[in-house]
Amino acid sequence: MRYGYIGSMRTRPGRRDEVVGILLLGADRLDAVGCQLYAVCTDPEDADVIWVTEIWDSAEHHDASLQLPDTKAAIAAATPMLTGEFTRRQLTVVGGLGVPAG
Amino acid sequence: MRYGYIGSMRTRPGRRDEVVGILLLGADRLDAVGCQLYAVCTDPEDADVIWVTEIWDSAEHHDASLQLPDTKAAIAAATPMLTGEFTRRQLTVVGGLGVPAG
Repeated sequence: MRYGYIGSMRTRPGRRDEVVGILLLGADRLDAVGCQLYAVCTDPEDADVIWVTEIWDSAEHHDASLQLPDTKAAIAAATPMLTGEFTRRQLTVVGGLGVPAG
Repeated sequence: MRYGYIGSMRTRPGRRDEVVGILLLGADRLDAVGCQLYAVCTDPEDADVIWVTEIWDSAEHHDASLQLPDTKAAIAAATPMLTGEFTRRQLTVVGGLGVPAG
């Protein structure tokens, strides 16, 4: 079953765009490891928050990606710029437009 | 600027799948009105909630879609099955995998 992830992170003041840059760095290579969508968003009403929406072939693909060297390096680079305030929601993608069948 | 929308709705007990069906009914036609992604998700930990993640060419495209007869009919059909508890977040999509450039 396709796996959906909606998460947010709060950055230290003024560091949002640096973290966005880190998140986007390897995004276009994630399709090789089972990622269908990885959308990085900012909030016009809150300058220090980043939202990420993801769709993966499965929860296992998502979990495995967290062990990749590139992912670990990105987390290590971004963490000092984050406050530690996160939200996350793990969902089941049931369909829609732009969602590959499967 | 591409517009992102993350929203949730709570359904009356046992009505979730009917509402999901309504949401999916016209989803594949939304690309004609500026929608790039319309992903309908359920929550394995809460049987009465639906999450929808959307990416549109602009906020104006999203807002205009709410005035379409099909959209109004879908809202009218779904509303009696909802509790009235919603969340919504309006975002700016800055990039990623599966996000068309623009």
